[in-house]
Amino acid sequence: MLIHSASQLITLAGGPQRGSDLGRLEIIPDGAVYIQDEKIAAVGSTRDLRRAYPDAPEVDASGRVVMPGFVDPHTHAIWAGDRAVEFEQRLQGKTYLEILAEGGGILSTVRATRTSSLEKLMAETRPRLWSMFTCGTTTAEVKTGYGLRTAVELRMLQALLTLNNEGPLEIVPTFLGAHAIAPEFLERPDDYTALICNTMLPILKEWWSHQAPYADLPFVDVFCETGAFSLEQSRSILTRAKELGFPLKIHADEFDNLGGAKLATELGAVSADHLVKTSPEDIQALANSQTAAVALPCTPFGLAETRYTPAQDILNAGGLLAIATDLNPGTAWCENMQFAMALACRYMRLTPAQAIAAATINAAAAIGRADRIGSLEPGKQADLLILSVPDYRHLGYRFGVNLVQTVIKKGRIYPV
Amino acid sequence: MLIHSASQLITLAGGPQRGSDLGRLEIIPDGAVYIQDEKIAAVGSTRDLRRAYPDAPEVDASGRVVMPGFVDPHTHAIWAGDRAVEFEQRLQGKTYLEILAEGGGILSTVRATRTSSLEKLMAETRPRLWSMFTCGTTTAEVKTGYGLRTAVELRMLQALLTLNNEGPLEIVPTFLGAHAIAPEFLERPDDYTALICNTMLPILKEWWSHQAPYADLPFVDVFCETGAFSLEQSRSILTRAKELGFPLKIHADEFDNLGGAKLATELGAVSADHLVKTSPEDIQALANSQTAAVALPCTPFGLAETRYTPAQDILNAGGLLAIATDLNPGTAWCENMQFAMALACRYMRLTPAQAIAAATINAAAAIGRADRIGSLEPGKQADLLILSVPDYRHLGYRFGVNLVQTVIKKGRIYPV
Repeated sequence: MLIHSASQLITLAGGPQRGSDLGRLEIIPDGAVYIQDEKIAAVGSTRDLRRAYPDAPEVDASGRVVMPGFVDPHTHAIWAGDRAVEFEQRLQGKTYLEILAEGGGILSTVRATRTSSLEKLMAETRPRLWSMFTCGTTTAEVKTGYGLRTAVELRMLQALLTLNNEGPLEIVPTFLGAHAIAPEFLERPDDYTALICNTMLPILKEWWSHQAPYADLPFVDVFCETGAFSLEQSRSILTRAKELGFPLKIHADEFDNLGGAKLATELGAVSADHLVKTSPEDIQALANSQTAAVALPCTPFGLAETRYTPAQDILNAGGLLAIATDLNPGTAWCENMQFAMALACRYMRLTPAQAIAAATINAAAAIGRADRIGSLEPGKQADLLILSVPDYRHLGYRFGVNLVQTVIKKGRIYPV
Repeated sequence: MLIHSASQLITLAGGPQRGSDLGRLEIIPDGAVYIQDEKIAAVGSTRDLRRAYPDAPEVDASGRVVMPGFVDPHTHAIWAGDRAVEFEQRLQGKTYLEILAEGGGILSTVRATRTSSLEKLMAETRPRLWSMFTCGTTTAEVKTGYGLRTAVELRMLQALLTLNNEGPLEIVPTFLGAHAIAPEFLERPDDYTALICNTMLPILKEWWSHQAPYADLPFVDVFCETGAFSLEQSRSILTRAKELGFPLKIHADEFDNLGGAKLATELGAVSADHLVKTSPEDIQALANSQTAAVALPCTPFGLAETRYTPAQDILNAGGLLAIATDLNPGTAWCENMQFAMALACRYMRLTPAQAIAAATINAAAAIGRADRIGSLEPGKQADLLILSVPDYRHLGYRFGVNLVQTVIKKGRIYPV
């Protein structure tokens, strides 16, 4: 299949983009992509590719941008129930602590998720995955973490494996048993930490070898934050996970700087995420490491907070910056990476080109998949978008809507 | 046609909602609407309406919210070209004055619009109107104002009349020849003001009587702001328009308080819009008048500014508050009223119920149409939405996507 005549073919060729390198789109005007089965076979000008593949079935993208599918490297897209009433209560003046005291907050989602069957959990999650996909996300990381007990965490992973098989959205799973202290352990968080280290992680390893023996191991992630897991608890969990061979992620410095970002670099985590309150030293440590910095602008937006991830500092230090939606039922029910990009332009001062690179090739790096997705290069998965606009700068400039016209996932076309 | 089994039928019955009255949704659980031709014939419980209309073709809305279509009471939806490059330049550090000096800003849209044929102008505008419609806007006010010379302003109005006839989005037109000082008159703004008063408005009156003799007269609007029209210039234009019988609107207090809101109340304008820098006295004057206060939260968002319309002050004073997108190519290219509502919840502290009333029945009042649209009551136009969600609070809570599943305009069904 030959997609041709794109006004701008945004290839993002050349690998992840660090620091001031961010925003190198590598645009081919009047561009074309030749797709063979599930992969990209060639990228070039329409003229050259039509000559090389004269018999290919053609898809006309004239007047429109063609680019890699978005990669959303941080979501909590699987859960049961919603917290719409809580949202209204907050606007009516109820404090977060009052809502918590009435059983609200994350633990209400944990309750709803624990009491949902595998089927119900998948049924509630499917429309969200489809919404992400139609908004242009072709691969998404999705975390567990609303079970907080072994059986429910594994049920969430089972749901993610099944939903990934159903497609079309490709799911990269993360085990986040350390999302919050489980309600049974509120008075003894160290015991819950020990449960994760000594029971959950070994069982997960064993379970995975039976359920998905040929898949990459899931990430293991920890919410390192005041009120969640301390630096020492986070270190225990991630160290144990590393011993077991799991790749690592961390939620760090969303509300307080506990040292989570630094820990990520010490343990070689693939990414450190949130990074709103990260210190200049920790930003430099991240930049000197292989750990990607993932900004989640929908979360301060969702909470109407004024501080966002200091993207310019991260770039000035030479860091690898990615952006994600953080899709979750509490602070950011937003499936649309284009909106995360519009926020990144306004509140993190990224240009549209930088936001695009942060949402594709760098986002792929933030989930350890930059070798397979995130750019249009021969040999990579044929995951791409045809936008309804002629110029990439419309991403960021326009907001609140969906500019994707067609999603192509592993070579298969899905009109939006 | 009987739409039945809505989890919540939001009727908004009882007319526009002032001050602390805002947010009275008048919900019928397990609700139904019976539609005859283009109008609502009955509203009630599914049980009662099924008994009353046993032979009606049925539309099942079970598990979903049914509510009035959104009314967007302030848009600049018709223009040619775009300002995506300028958006990027601003992020790269160029100042607004530098962009202006290079021919950017509103005058670049004026240039593109002036050189567009009627057909081109309509062709570029149609996708925006469709995007508004699929996001649930069933009626929108649309302003001229990128012509700034008689012939082009009339061409814009001609386009709006034609696009309104094409449907499905219903367009309420506004003449905004006083959007900016025309480039030919930059050194002598009083002459441009005189041209509007003495030439454009009388010609418009005459033209309208031939082109749309049976339609309501368009609104006449002025951008009363530093750098646009002074208070005295605004007063001249609006006074002349009033003498000619036009209903009035005004852009007031977006960046500076020149007294535009007060002027609106003195002249009996249907609405005063923006109102970011409005003084407490002017807020009280508005509240004591029949003039609706229209907040445009997408505009400060688009510019990443921190001040929004002081909605709580307007409500405390007893004002009639509506919200709109302000859709335009410079500061807010956003077709989606749901996103304006999500902003209103976060930055104006409206509850979802208040945002819904401000976007429907009050928005209808802000364009003088509350007798025909904006609520689900017998005799009103059958303009309604079936959302994909079970609870109205999802509006506001969720953002960046489209929660509308089906739009019904004048009794005709459009799946989204």
